[in-house]
Amino acid sequence: MTAFVNQRAALDIDDHLPAVLAHPSEEEVAQLDAWWRANNYLTVGQIYLRGNPLMREPLRPEHIKPRLLGHWGTSPGLSLIYAHVSRLIKRTGQQTIYLTGPGHGGPALVAAGYLEGTYSEIYPGVSQDEAGMLRLFRQFSSPGGIPSHVSVTTPGSIHEGGELGYVLVHAFGAVMDNPDLLAVAVVGDGEAETGPLEGSWKGVSFINPVHDGAVLPILHLNGAKIAGPTVLARKSREEVRSLLEGHGYELIEVEGSDLPGMHHRFAAALTAAWVKIRTIQQAARSGDWDGSRPRWPLIVLRSPKGWTGPEQVDGVTVTGTWRSHQVPLSGVRDNAEHLRMLEQWLLSYRPQELFDDSGAPSELVRALAPEGELRMSASPHANGGLVTRDLDLPDFRDYAVDVTQPAQLRAESTRKLGELMRDIYARNPDRFRLFCPDETNSNRLGAVFEVTDRGFMEQVHPEDTAISRDGRVMEVLSEHNCHGWLEGYNLTGRHGIFATYEAFAMVSASQTVQHGKWLQEAAHLPWRAKVPSLNILLTSTAWRNDHNGFSHQGPGLIQVVLNQRGTVSRIYLPPDANCLLSVADHCFRSRSYVNLIVIDKQPQLQWLTIDQAIEHCARGAGVWEWAGTDDGASDPDIVLACAGDVVTMETVAAAQILKQRLPTMKVRVVNVVNLMTLPRPKDHPHGMSSTQFTELFTDTVDVVFAFHGYPGAIHQLVHGRPDADRFRVRGFIEEGTTTTPFDMTVRNRASRYHLVMDAINNAKRLPRGATDLKEWCEAQLARHHEYVVEHLEDMPEVRDWSLGDWAEPA
Amino acid sequence: MTAFVNQRAALDIDDHLPAVLAHPSEEEVAQLDAWWRANNYLTVGQIYLRGNPLMREPLRPEHIKPRLLGHWGTSPGLSLIYAHVSRLIKRTGQQTIYLTGPGHGGPALVAAGYLEGTYSEIYPGVSQDEAGMLRLFRQFSSPGGIPSHVSVTTPGSIHEGGELGYVLVHAFGAVMDNPDLLAVAVVGDGEAETGPLEGSWKGVSFINPVHDGAVLPILHLNGAKIAGPTVLARKSREEVRSLLEGHGYELIEVEGSDLPGMHHRFAAALTAAWVKIRTIQQAARSGDWDGSRPRWPLIVLRSPKGWTGPEQVDGVTVTGTWRSHQVPLSGVRDNAEHLRMLEQWLLSYRPQELFDDSGAPSELVRALAPEGELRMSASPHANGGLVTRDLDLPDFRDYAVDVTQPAQLRAESTRKLGELMRDIYARNPDRFRLFCPDETNSNRLGAVFEVTDRGFMEQVHPEDTAISRDGRVMEVLSEHNCHGWLEGYNLTGRHGIFATYEAFAMVSASQTVQHGKWLQEAAHLPWRAKVPSLNILLTSTAWRNDHNGFSHQGPGLIQVVLNQRGTVSRIYLPPDANCLLSVADHCFRSRSYVNLIVIDKQPQLQWLTIDQAIEHCARGAGVWEWAGTDDGASDPDIVLACAGDVVTMETVAAAQILKQRLPTMKVRVVNVVNLMTLPRPKDHPHGMSSTQFTELFTDTVDVVFAFHGYPGAIHQLVHGRPDADRFRVRGFIEEGTTTTPFDMTVRNRASRYHLVMDAINNAKRLPRGATDLKEWCEAQLARHHEYVVEHLEDMPEVRDWSLGDWAEPA
Repeated sequence: MTAFVNQRAALDIDDHLPAVLAHPSEEEVAQLDAWWRANNYLTVGQIYLRGNPLMREPLRPEHIKPRLLGHWGTSPGLSLIYAHVSRLIKRTGQQTIYLTGPGHGGPALVAAGYLEGTYSEIYPGVSQDEAGMLRLFRQFSSPGGIPSHVSVTTPGSIHEGGELGYVLVHAFGAVMDNPDLLAVAVVGDGEAETGPLEGSWKGVSFINPVHDGAVLPILHLNGAKIAGPTVLARKSREEVRSLLEGHGYELIEVEGSDLPGMHHRFAAALTAAWVKIRTIQQAARSGDWDGSRPRWPLIVLRSPKGWTGPEQVDGVTVTGTWRSHQVPLSGVRDNAEHLRMLEQWLLSYRPQELFDDSGAPSELVRALAPEGELRMSASPHANGGLVTRDLDLPDFRDYAVDVTQPAQLRAESTRKLGELMRDIYARNPDRFRLFCPDETNSNRLGAVFEVTDRGFMEQVHPEDTAISRDGRVMEVLSEHNCHGWLEGYNLTGRHGIFATYEAFAMVSASQTVQHGKWLQEAAHLPWRAKVPSLNILLTSTAWRNDHNGFSHQGPGLIQVVLNQRGTVSRIYLPPDANCLLSVADHCFRSRSYVNLIVIDKQPQLQWLTIDQAIEHCARGAGVWEWAGTDDGASDPDIVLACAGDVVTMETVAAAQILKQRLPTMKVRVVNVVNLMTLPRPKDHPHGMSSTQFTELFTDTVDVVFAFHGYPGAIHQLVHGRPDADRFRVRGFIEEGTTTTPFDMTVRNRASRYHLVMDAINNAKRLPRGATDLKEWCEAQLARHHEYVVEHLEDMPEVRDWSLGDWAEPA
Repeated sequence: MTAFVNQRAALDIDDHLPAVLAHPSEEEVAQLDAWWRANNYLTVGQIYLRGNPLMREPLRPEHIKPRLLGHWGTSPGLSLIYAHVSRLIKRTGQQTIYLTGPGHGGPALVAAGYLEGTYSEIYPGVSQDEAGMLRLFRQFSSPGGIPSHVSVTTPGSIHEGGELGYVLVHAFGAVMDNPDLLAVAVVGDGEAETGPLEGSWKGVSFINPVHDGAVLPILHLNGAKIAGPTVLARKSREEVRSLLEGHGYELIEVEGSDLPGMHHRFAAALTAAWVKIRTIQQAARSGDWDGSRPRWPLIVLRSPKGWTGPEQVDGVTVTGTWRSHQVPLSGVRDNAEHLRMLEQWLLSYRPQELFDDSGAPSELVRALAPEGELRMSASPHANGGLVTRDLDLPDFRDYAVDVTQPAQLRAESTRKLGELMRDIYARNPDRFRLFCPDETNSNRLGAVFEVTDRGFMEQVHPEDTAISRDGRVMEVLSEHNCHGWLEGYNLTGRHGIFATYEAFAMVSASQTVQHGKWLQEAAHLPWRAKVPSLNILLTSTAWRNDHNGFSHQGPGLIQVVLNQRGTVSRIYLPPDANCLLSVADHCFRSRSYVNLIVIDKQPQLQWLTIDQAIEHCARGAGVWEWAGTDDGASDPDIVLACAGDVVTMETVAAAQILKQRLPTMKVRVVNVVNLMTLPRPKDHPHGMSSTQFTELFTDTVDVVFAFHGYPGAIHQLVHGRPDADRFRVRGFIEEGTTTTPFDMTVRNRASRYHLVMDAINNAKRLPRGATDLKEWCEAQLARHHEYVVEHLEDMPEVRDWSLGDWAEPA
């Protein structure tokens, strides 16, 4: 593990450094304060000014924006922290990223990037001079500009300040296998009320001090959210302490608003936290560690909301209350008193000391800041594509199921993926992880435990299996943690996959949406390098939750990903193990997508050889000639299409019935692996050409489409294709319960018998015997129904069903 | 408040009662133990047996189910608690419901309902005799039977044991305004890792001891989840204590597996908890309360996973480890040793003492149980429809906006809803609440604060506004809490609404799905009375997140609700205030639906008088003759349809442009309020008849449909309608950013100009001038584009846009 040790930082802790860091000199305090004032000045400027950016003339109404937007309240706290962390970095060389939980502190973080020069490097129009400053102000919260929260456009950020609750999961994900990195994560006390945030404090129970970096959470209790107080700010200090110590942290508390006192106290607190972190890491990395979970430090900062802003407005207290959340002075354009107060407020930061004649940050301000990639706004860790190294992938063909002909062999497809991932773990000990809510074995991915364990820093007992401090499989019973850790891991340039039960993927659906949005926006920014894709494997699917029933049956995430833009959304429904291997290999190599892979974990029939699978997956959709009776020379009488493992079996079974009983009927079977081949190319980059579409589906023949998810998804996808109305879709129609897998297909009208009847009802040309066959299908379904009713009392054996006429045991 | 006091329970606390309760007699311990053994016996029977239910003959392989499913591990802990709470109820008359967090303890809860007789009352086939017991066993986890977790079919439950994390939110919601109710909520240590659960401990910060009931959380640390240890079970006792005390609880800890010792210790713990609760309530209700947040009790129960099951199997320790999570003895059918161990295990409960000759629970077992509605499995609180009282609703017409003609008046529509809700609060002080993540004012619903406050039990400061202990508006920055509290409130028979930002509704999307599934399943159970609907108001919509931008723009929840079954899913897109009032009135009166209402909060044009709105909403969709040029006599040249406020304005504007510039073109404008009128009646009960559909949309004329959400939703909904391909849908296509509202419509190709061009491109008959008009539209869009590019630097004033040719300020 010595390769992981950050030698530079390690060497830096000599006996004197902590004292020097903890006690900034007068000059340093002046620099800190100047940087902080400059940041606050730029923050206020962004909210208010459209002219007179350097306040070199008296403030007049026409200098004020017509519509005042933005969030002042959280900003001064964020910038105070930023200033002090910058000093720490400069003195220690500590690689650090900054994650802003109170996301509406956007202007403070934008100002930080601007003061550090990064902003102008990325956006040359926003230069470090008066014109650039004006542009900085004008673009904020304006049309065509930047939002009022931290966003993809903010340099140094891997965390959008939109939906709240994910700052710690992103921070913990960022430091996994990133031993040199410190992630400073500011948690707002509003955000701290969300479930995902509360569920994420326990990240320390999974962080290994040897091969992971460290998260320094800073809980910023400024007392209020948008319209009232927060829970944590109004609990007693003892309770807050008790709560956070209970999560496993060592608390360092800082409180006040006196200056320069707060600079001294915060510098001391930050130093204590950093020394503690480095001490833990150095001890662990030098072998001087008993293996118990370290008590990592956590800073609680209590400073007034809207600190340094107007204390009172119109006789009402603003600073320290929810009234400073957004725009403390709202009437500046029309109210002379407000205008005067704003002028005083801006001048209180003494801009003439902060910016030189050209408008660039003065030497006093710049003295504090680290340089190059040590600037938090320029950290390559926060632009993870820059530090992404491809996975060393084994040849996925080596894991293939040996298929000689279709439908002879039965296998648990995900088990093969587990074997592939085992070897990916072995070859990439520093850049690949599986994240899963305690279901790795249940999902048949347990081969990974041959080479690594579950990671866990709490007590491990002798009877435990495959769990240790050094483990790198991340199991925590929280979809939010799993999803968020993987996002943080991806965004800092590493690879992984989130595997979960299909129905419960909706728990983290909003994270899937928001991460997709991040990737979509990043695609427009040339300076953001592409990062590893977010891979999501859904298994234990709707069709095979036999004994769990209705609450475990829901393919909703497909619908969620479907609506994302074509730049990021990818949905794969491999019908068997070899297709799954091909798809997974592709996903692990890809960048900046949301790859959704859906396949069940139960033993299932295998269809394609590995070579066939590779070709099929490369095309994304294709005719399975062997399954149908289509000669390919002319249009068939009907197309039976399918996407998804269970419905593929029902489709092949339906084709088989038709082949046997109506041999002259021309049936074409089409299987779709890559769902995004269905839309038109103008709607999705994977969309197949109209020629290809016609080759598969014809222009006029009716298509009976058996789909894994909600039928509406297919109607949505084929819209605009020739005569889209001819697609008759069967899929999951929310008919579920505790029942046999075959009965699930019957209840949802997607069974082989339903598909045969659909084929007959919609075929172009009906051979003799079709009516009889429909009747026979009805009889089969009636027989099935009787069987179900009758056999409840007899406890039928629930077996895997297969091809052939009758799916239940005799 | 005296009306709320539970006089009976209050009288019961005499000086002697605590001592009597805390120290069960030998006879009582025998009864407790017998009930517990009976429950465990029935639990094991459900997992294993298909014959020989009373073990009156030696156990043979054919008595064993062919497939062994179910979860033993958590069950004995759940039943121990149930037994003791039953004794408490019997001695005190305390109205109590039981919520099972570790949901896969289904067999224990089913067994409890069976022992109490409720199960047989509801399901007469599962009678209290040998035949009924056999059926009880056979139905478990079998096709057509019941799932292995607690479900809708389980009497006494308001909480599905599927997706984990919501047991406390449901419990807290259940006791709000329910002063006589005690909700015992067992939290599993696996579930305790989820974000929603961790975020829900703070429910005590919102529970008022005078007008609310009490939640008694019991954290059951049995050490393991499906495949490994849990975080809380492996932290030190000190940390667990610190964490939970930090949340505000007083801890009572019980640990062990010795018997009868555990009965004595648990009885003492439960008594202490109940006395503490009653003492808090009595003090508060008699005025002897300083207003500070009580420290409510919480029991931590440490007992072995799989307690009383086989200690070791095949030489490996099972009890107390994750190996007992599901089926501890897996080979009983084929392995004689396993069969023998199962026999011993079943006989260890001494079934002959527990069931009489007929197979009914013996007197010893029944002695413990309360009767009638005090049985937890028969509590009307857990079948909330039984205790639902209609809201006393004011006449919503009284809140109408005074519209004399369309598009003259501008109003914030949700403000009117706020006024309506203010008066609903005033008239229903015991059965209506609004739940909202700190956005009540932001969402323009602040009129409610004229009659009540935000409820908050932590410190309140003098500068706070509209917040107090007695407040009943529930603001917490957690969609999970808001949604879950409302579910608990609904399921126990009370009414409410969850109002949130549209984009962040995806945070709790999985709760919406699961609650919908609950309601869908309940609809099949005649004994489950209908409960108030789950009302969700989405505001701050995608189209009007001007300064927040892309991460705040997402109408995904519509798509989620759309896929639920027609028995529950309802989606309303009122275009203005009067329609919103009519829709809201309907939703507040409805039962057992998921009502999704989407409308923005910004000032918007008003279209309909209240009478027109009522008629329009009753139909769900209608022609707006005044907006179009359609004579109604024959088919128009084009139909312009719309659903959603912003797109309705663009549609009316487009129609206006067409009217002015192509006056001979026949344009019909159709507005859809109730989205579920679009599908065929066979697909949704609100689906309009084919005649009505043709009256609105014709059978052949192209329809340009401007939709609030993702366009695919409309394609999905109109599938199967005549020539569905003719619907050209414009909607939110994930093109968002920080921009003007009008620019949002342009970016998503749903602006008036796009709609005019779509109309021209698809009209049946094109009058002269159409080509010129298209060119003019292109020019308008080019002008708009130039304006946006050009005016970023000039800081354009962002105003509300309106009808007319040009939407940006000059």
